[in-house]
Amino acid sequence: MALGLLRLGVASRASAQAPLPSLLGFRSADVPAERAREATLDAGIRPDSLRRHLRILTETPHVAGTPADLADAEYVRNRLIAYGWDAHLEAVPVYLNYPAEPVLELTEPTATPLATRERGLQWDKDAYDRDAFPAFHGYGAAGEVTAQVVYANYGDVDDFKKLAEVGIDVRGRIVLARYGRNFRGLKVRNAERAGAAGVIIYSDPADDGFARDDVYPRGQGRPEDAIQRGSVQYLSEGPGDPTTPGWGSTDKGKRLKPSEVKGIPKIPSIPLSWGEAKKILLALDGPRVPDAWQGGLELTYHMGPGPAKVHMKIGQNYSVRPIWNVIATLKGREAPDQWVIGGNHRDAWVHGANDPNSGTITMLEVARGIGALTRNGWRPRRTLVLCSWDGEEYGLLGSTEWCETNAAELKQKAVAYVNVDAAVGGHDFGVSGAHALGDVITEVINDVKDPGKGPSVGQVWADRLKNEGRADWARRNRERRWRGEPEQIFVPMPGSLGSGSDYTAFEDRLGIASCNLGFGGVGGVYHSQYDDFAFMDRVVDPGYAYHVAMVEIWSRLALRLAEAEAIPLRYSETGNFALEEIQTLDDRADDVNAALADSSKLKADLTALRAAATHLRDAGRTLESAVDRALTRGVWPDGSAASTNRLLIGAERNFIGAGLPGRTWFLNEIYAPGLNTGYAAVPLPRLGQAVLEHDAHAWRDGVEPIRAALERTATALQAK
Amino acid sequence: MALGLLRLGVASRASAQAPLPSLLGFRSADVPAERAREATLDAGIRPDSLRRHLRILTETPHVAGTPADLADAEYVRNRLIAYGWDAHLEAVPVYLNYPAEPVLELTEPTATPLATRERGLQWDKDAYDRDAFPAFHGYGAAGEVTAQVVYANYGDVDDFKKLAEVGIDVRGRIVLARYGRNFRGLKVRNAERAGAAGVIIYSDPADDGFARDDVYPRGQGRPEDAIQRGSVQYLSEGPGDPTTPGWGSTDKGKRLKPSEVKGIPKIPSIPLSWGEAKKILLALDGPRVPDAWQGGLELTYHMGPGPAKVHMKIGQNYSVRPIWNVIATLKGREAPDQWVIGGNHRDAWVHGANDPNSGTITMLEVARGIGALTRNGWRPRRTLVLCSWDGEEYGLLGSTEWCETNAAELKQKAVAYVNVDAAVGGHDFGVSGAHALGDVITEVINDVKDPGKGPSVGQVWADRLKNEGRADWARRNRERRWRGEPEQIFVPMPGSLGSGSDYTAFEDRLGIASCNLGFGGVGGVYHSQYDDFAFMDRVVDPGYAYHVAMVEIWSRLALRLAEAEAIPLRYSETGNFALEEIQTLDDRADDVNAALADSSKLKADLTALRAAATHLRDAGRTLESAVDRALTRGVWPDGSAASTNRLLIGAERNFIGAGLPGRTWFLNEIYAPGLNTGYAAVPLPRLGQAVLEHDAHAWRDGVEPIRAALERTATALQAK
Repeated sequence: MALGLLRLGVASRASAQAPLPSLLGFRSADVPAERAREATLDAGIRPDSLRRHLRILTETPHVAGTPADLADAEYVRNRLIAYGWDAHLEAVPVYLNYPAEPVLELTEPTATPLATRERGLQWDKDAYDRDAFPAFHGYGAAGEVTAQVVYANYGDVDDFKKLAEVGIDVRGRIVLARYGRNFRGLKVRNAERAGAAGVIIYSDPADDGFARDDVYPRGQGRPEDAIQRGSVQYLSEGPGDPTTPGWGSTDKGKRLKPSEVKGIPKIPSIPLSWGEAKKILLALDGPRVPDAWQGGLELTYHMGPGPAKVHMKIGQNYSVRPIWNVIATLKGREAPDQWVIGGNHRDAWVHGANDPNSGTITMLEVARGIGALTRNGWRPRRTLVLCSWDGEEYGLLGSTEWCETNAAELKQKAVAYVNVDAAVGGHDFGVSGAHALGDVITEVINDVKDPGKGPSVGQVWADRLKNEGRADWARRNRERRWRGEPEQIFVPMPGSLGSGSDYTAFEDRLGIASCNLGFGGVGGVYHSQYDDFAFMDRVVDPGYAYHVAMVEIWSRLALRLAEAEAIPLRYSETGNFALEEIQTLDDRADDVNAALADSSKLKADLTALRAAATHLRDAGRTLESAVDRALTRGVWPDGSAASTNRLLIGAERNFIGAGLPGRTWFLNEIYAPGLNTGYAAVPLPRLGQAVLEHDAHAWRDGVEPIRAALERTATALQAK
Repeated sequence: MALGLLRLGVASRASAQAPLPSLLGFRSADVPAERAREATLDAGIRPDSLRRHLRILTETPHVAGTPADLADAEYVRNRLIAYGWDAHLEAVPVYLNYPAEPVLELTEPTATPLATRERGLQWDKDAYDRDAFPAFHGYGAAGEVTAQVVYANYGDVDDFKKLAEVGIDVRGRIVLARYGRNFRGLKVRNAERAGAAGVIIYSDPADDGFARDDVYPRGQGRPEDAIQRGSVQYLSEGPGDPTTPGWGSTDKGKRLKPSEVKGIPKIPSIPLSWGEAKKILLALDGPRVPDAWQGGLELTYHMGPGPAKVHMKIGQNYSVRPIWNVIATLKGREAPDQWVIGGNHRDAWVHGANDPNSGTITMLEVARGIGALTRNGWRPRRTLVLCSWDGEEYGLLGSTEWCETNAAELKQKAVAYVNVDAAVGGHDFGVSGAHALGDVITEVINDVKDPGKGPSVGQVWADRLKNEGRADWARRNRERRWRGEPEQIFVPMPGSLGSGSDYTAFEDRLGIASCNLGFGGVGGVYHSQYDDFAFMDRVVDPGYAYHVAMVEIWSRLALRLAEAEAIPLRYSETGNFALEEIQTLDDRADDVNAALADSSKLKADLTALRAAATHLRDAGRTLESAVDRALTRGVWPDGSAASTNRLLIGAERNFIGAGLPGRTWFLNEIYAPGLNTGYAAVPLPRLGQAVLEHDAHAWRDGVEPIRAALERTATALQAK
């Protein structure tokens, strides 16, 4: 379900933009061999192989648990075996829904049926395919309702607050919300909490249609009839099978009854194209919307209620069905119990050429390349694991259940997790991830040529971030001068991980340093029938050059993490990030306080928190210096890098705490999705959430658990 | 041509929001009489009188210099005489154009005529009137051209820079630009400089159409066929008759030949409705526009050039014609040579119910009210002057020529100038003006009930500014803390004056403290045939309550300025504003420098400039304390307020310098319109412009003239 989200960070480390003379974690003598392996791998990448995989994998709609999905799983497993990996299917029983054919119609002011299928394009057989499921939401509720419509903008918490302020009661009514900003499940959650009887979510062209790009097939913008399917699970409260929250889903294991399930909607919902939604919007009266609610259609948006009245009849077939993860390993020669894991999901709402199979074909080509390197007997130092997840679209099912089932082993063995969901959905490289991975990621992308303009993916990425972030950076430096702190040069950093793809359980539940990589774009065919082979082959990546770049990036990252003598995780970066984020939160609290009465202002002493972040940064620096010294001298004080690597493998696990307020599935004190965003990260979540919610108690109480997590990590790094 | 523009300011004076116990400049003993006069005046305001004036004044389109315009002038003069004022017409010969019927058509890809008249509404006789001029631009050039079209967004300097970057050559082509952001004449100037052969300016619904409000008659948004007429003079280079730049226009006086004229276009231009412009936009290919260029229509905007090709044939009848100012005076009892001036223009592009005649009827009712106060023999201390300007729409002709002709006398006698152009074009009160007038304006609007919600116009205004400015204010206070400066409470301040109405010559050429007042809105009928009686009477101000508020505001302001013992101009405010603005410019320079090489960074020592602004603030405070003391004790150290008032009358004149770089008509070193904005202010213009243009030399050289102007003013206030 990847929808690329990127946060700009500015940190104080020296620039990592220039290619480094050596490779992080390698001693100089080992660099030429590593570079040679990477060159061999690059030389073997075949666009026609990528294209063939894509054609095969996207031939048929392959929703999780369907026969077409199983066929794709077997294809992936068989390819991985053929490429020299030890691969097998793991069936996971999960509770999920398939749709009945829905009924959706405007009954007032004029009876008008509303289309719940795309029209397609005759020349584009996949988009014209009638085998796709109609418009529906994963984990959507069944139900029938006829009611007046209220327009609720993005349907976020503030939007419903605004409706209440204006005096518009959504109780018993159908909420029409537009896609964007927050995760769709939270739109339904918010509507349900406000008492709505049903929800329609449409794609406004201001967000991903003609206002953002020419529409497919001329460009990547969303066609008038394209429907964004997707899950309406309350993602920010916890992913995975909702009948097995927090534990692995197995055939005979514990499972909640449907009536006990939390975190999925009780009111029916359905997605809609803008061409159909316009018919409703044109028939809404009531107050004109606030300026920020106005979308991209040629009409003045009104809140309603009515006179538009809609009849929706949504049927769902819920059942526990098997889905299939494919797990492949390449055993390490020296540290087989240190796992460098990569993953991509395979299930799609329809054909999924971008989301997710651009990532699947990238993974297959990575596997082929690395597999080829092992033909002469070479093996990486550590074990490589590649995972083809299933059921991601419904709620990160395959990866979450796997993490929950194998939690103990993963916490012991996992070095890092690299996620690639939609590898190529446009031409803008984006990365978010644990900041400890920032340096090695930067090193890798600086080594890979950008298929567009610019010498390297890293350079194009850095230039873009610099361009977007320059004013902010100048302001921050001015503030630093005023505070008597040294100015800092601009350094692009990965954004923080939110949620919306399979890294979530790894980072947020288990504390495994994770990242998410891909080339993003407008997202105009996202989760629609138009995300098909022709879209990728003709519009986004004819020639597959961006896929090639992603293969180069992913394979380098996997190889270096698996082969480096000292694992290239650098916690000075995490410390820097935490320091910046604390300043940002402090400033935001100050902004929030400007509007609050003194008794409800956010007040907390952040001194100890800053000290812990500084401690982490310094402990990281000390360790990094020691590693650099050992690599330069070729001598480890204690004989080998083993103990250092153990520290590094365990470091991120110290972020794990007792569980976040109101959503105890989430254990990471540093990284989490926003409770009301779903996709987007709210780092240092206790404090970040407190600022967003103007919650003075949460602000005060949020400091200590974060401080403790930072301090634990710093101390752990000094254990040696 | 009023298009309300408001800048938020935050200053360090004590809050002026709460009603003051006394009246600024009055001794306590005199307050009851003044309040009684104001109460009498309020009680006499008649909505039906306002409505009748509006019906009469807007019955016929009355472009400057037409017989209908003369009839309106005579109506206004006769009313003013009837109300007890000494009023007369002053004919001013000016060079201006009337249009021939234009030809405008798409010739490729499909021949399509483009409408140059509004369709109107049958029930609304004025909007349906066929007597209006067709689409044309005041001071537009004649010409015929057939060429491919290039879309240039708002047609500002940066937009043309972007086109050049992308490699799109506008030479010989027709530029299609949208209204908004900058003054329309500058769009044509920029296109002409880039080599375009013609310009079409259309109203995009994102800016003033359905995206901003329901369209007329349901709301105030711009109808699909509404055309924004207007002047294309290069307003920011100097207003007034372009054949008499800098001197008064008279029958036999010096006048440039048309061929010698600068500051008006040489290439033809025409305004267009969005309904017609869409036909062109749909036929543009070439690169997709940057996101910020996308307008509100249901299409993906492209830059072109072509394939759309347009044929435009624009005829103009240029001639020197008379226009008619009406000047009315009510001689002061004690200081007849101290003039408190008010003004509004009367000429309109069509019927002008909002722009300008909502102001004209307000002025007539102010005149009637004040006139009635004089029936029993009372006269204000100082002379009141009311001016009904003509030719404002073409380029502030009547007011500018009057100021140029009477410059010497005005510099000696003028106390202040209060401008009301479009008095009621919506429900949001706005004010911009010399900051020395800030306190008395705030005092006045806090005394006047808001017709919408809220106790007073001042409170509603302050709440809105506070709401919009809260985050900025919190950030500024945080910065002050970091700089070791004291925090400041939020105080709403008038925005700075830019240009676009008749205050321009008063403030920017003569240094007379001026302000501009009005209730603004979306501006959707602005300069179209829909700005008519029905629009005002049914949509914007049925009941004329906002007009009544404006009469109360204007009459109070005039009366208090004319009657106060000590003139309520407070230069501590100007000093505060200058200090804030210097900090803002310093920060912006810092932002700009972040993107510049060291050799071209903006560098200047602002210490002396800050010292001068501080000096002005402190000199103002000292004088204000002395005045307050004298009023409290009832004793002036030198016998009367006369010498203090002389200082205050002369103070603003010290802002006058040698003329701004490249536009020497503008003499004020503190207030000016932006060279590339036209409407919007760029205060401390030498430095403000230098930052906008990243001009290191102008930045360095701009400090001293501003410092000197502030210092002169401070010193003058201490002359006593």
